[in-house]
Amino acid sequence: MNRSAQYVGDGTFVVEATEPVPPGPGEVRLDVAYTGICGTDLHIAHGAMDHRVRVPAVIGHEMSGRIAEIGAGVTGHRVGDPVTVMPLDWCGECPACRAGHTHICHRLNFIGIDSPGAMQRSWTVPARILVPLPEQMSLAHGALVEPTAVAVHDVRRSRLTAGEHAVVIGAGPVGLLIGVVAQATGATVTVLELDPGRRALAADLGLSTVDPADVDVAGYVQDHTGGAGADVVFEVSGSAGGVRTATDLLAVRGRLVIVAIHPKPREVDLHRVFWRELEMIGVRVYQHDDYAEAVRLVHEGQVPADRLISRIVPLAEVAQAFEALAAGGDVKVLIDCGGDA
Amino acid sequence: MNRSAQYVGDGTFVVEATEPVPPGPGEVRLDVAYTGICGTDLHIAHGAMDHRVRVPAVIGHEMSGRIAEIGAGVTGHRVGDPVTVMPLDWCGECPACRAGHTHICHRLNFIGIDSPGAMQRSWTVPARILVPLPEQMSLAHGALVEPTAVAVHDVRRSRLTAGEHAVVIGAGPVGLLIGVVAQATGATVTVLELDPGRRALAADLGLSTVDPADVDVAGYVQDHTGGAGADVVFEVSGSAGGVRTATDLLAVRGRLVIVAIHPKPREVDLHRVFWRELEMIGVRVYQHDDYAEAVRLVHEGQVPADRLISRIVPLAEVAQAFEALAAGGDVKVLIDCGGDA
Repeated sequence: MNRSAQYVGDGTFVVEATEPVPPGPGEVRLDVAYTGICGTDLHIAHGAMDHRVRVPAVIGHEMSGRIAEIGAGVTGHRVGDPVTVMPLDWCGECPACRAGHTHICHRLNFIGIDSPGAMQRSWTVPARILVPLPEQMSLAHGALVEPTAVAVHDVRRSRLTAGEHAVVIGAGPVGLLIGVVAQATGATVTVLELDPGRRALAADLGLSTVDPADVDVAGYVQDHTGGAGADVVFEVSGSAGGVRTATDLLAVRGRLVIVAIHPKPREVDLHRVFWRELEMIGVRVYQHDDYAEAVRLVHEGQVPADRLISRIVPLAEVAQAFEALAAGGDVKVLIDCGGDA
Repeated sequence: MNRSAQYVGDGTFVVEATEPVPPGPGEVRLDVAYTGICGTDLHIAHGAMDHRVRVPAVIGHEMSGRIAEIGAGVTGHRVGDPVTVMPLDWCGECPACRAGHTHICHRLNFIGIDSPGAMQRSWTVPARILVPLPEQMSLAHGALVEPTAVAVHDVRRSRLTAGEHAVVIGAGPVGLLIGVVAQATGATVTVLELDPGRRALAADLGLSTVDPADVDVAGYVQDHTGGAGADVVFEVSGSAGGVRTATDLLAVRGRLVIVAIHPKPREVDLHRVFWRELEMIGVRVYQHDDYAEAVRLVHEGQVPADRLISRIVPLAEVAQAFEALAAGGDVKVLIDCGGDA
């Protein structure tokens, strides 16, 4: 028997018994161990994406688990293998796919948003989205591979190299992971964050932190870069002020990575973009290479998973898990879907 | 005897006889043949840069001429050599210079704006800024090398390649040169321009043109790119609408080059930057490699200099030259400084 948390609209979840879906050709059925709650899941739970999500919906895409059943024609996998998924399904035919940018397919199906996700005990998915996890990795840690792949993608697109200076604006889960991944490249990282709790956690992870309400950030970055400015700024706050700060901080030829989703157009200092030959780089989800690197970073402990997982909640209490996350104070909340028995 | 056009402030020029400046060590004195009027020169003549330009000022930096006199210690040049200049003087010590980006030095001296320029018969400059011209190139054509180097720089920074589709928003002199240079790379180029006269000239140069007031530009670009969108958009209009159009037109992973100077922050659709993983690239002036390519393109006729030079005016009539340019209808106006005798 399966148990699934179903979002029924209007900010409400129902957890109920459902029939497991037998894997068809090319599919596998997974026993889901843990599913993390992402910022997008929180938006969905708050009703902000009711235009896109067809209810009742099982959401969730930051997962780990083991293969429970294998459909016809699937090779290279065995029952019991630990896995996560890269939850993207693309058409293969649109201009983006034909240009090799399948992860930003014009008709991308984001599994767990646009089609059923992992907040359930038993989940059936196409085998092609599986990403093997090392047998020695705890499955709780495995659920952090997907958000780590986001950070790896963002840092890779920034072309950040050892010895450069990066600034991360906003220390939510994605900002913290970007900070950790950027630091793992050998860059110096400064995190700007207004919230004292998040700042403390960033400091605990070994990142330099600054309270932008308290410090002249431009002066600080100047002082710490010999007057040059930052080589890379990651805008993870989603705020108009974050965008303004970012262009102010950048060195000549600096790169501004737009990580946060800005729901409306923002004013950008294009004179400074011209004057310093700045670059702005959009980033969205990840690609296969990012997953390989994310598995490595989590496995080797460079991403300190235990310190990022602040709460693990049983599937039956999924609503409370969302409430806790919305209340603040948590970093990464995992839902224990029961598949790690 | 020298004759120089001096900007004395308040939109006024005075042409008068002055003493030639003998070249000091490391300098050369040039007989200036032609000096083009750039958009920045027009701003200066309209009083818009009185905060930066110290009057009386001899402006002008798009020039050609011959070496008339050589100062002590200058090697590799002979009297009579045809030359243009790369009018940049950098400090060599700031973070930008130390990082190798001397052309956007923190303390850049733009010769002809921040120090005396080429709207005079006799001009003394550091030998290190000289760029040799081919003996067979007409000196009138040689005055187009500097603006062509701007276009070469912008196209190079865009990473445009043969077979890609580029859109140029705004067909002033810089936009036209970008269109011509982009086409020379083997890209397909569409120019958006409201003004019928400029549109006709762009078409005359072999560029596809669209009147954005008359055509659904996004639909047009979709239709001409198999639904993909443009690979590169050059924003040369300096308008808020140009920036908005640019992000609308770009394909997945498309590049938006900010060529125009936007005097105030502009709203940018950062959601689209994220969704399509767009890039924005700031561009300013040029580097030595851009000059080498610009000399080649003008020399080989890929930049149709004769069709771009719409008027040549004697130095004594410099004020009328500025008036003609401001009135519109002209592309490139050259001042005949008398050194091509």
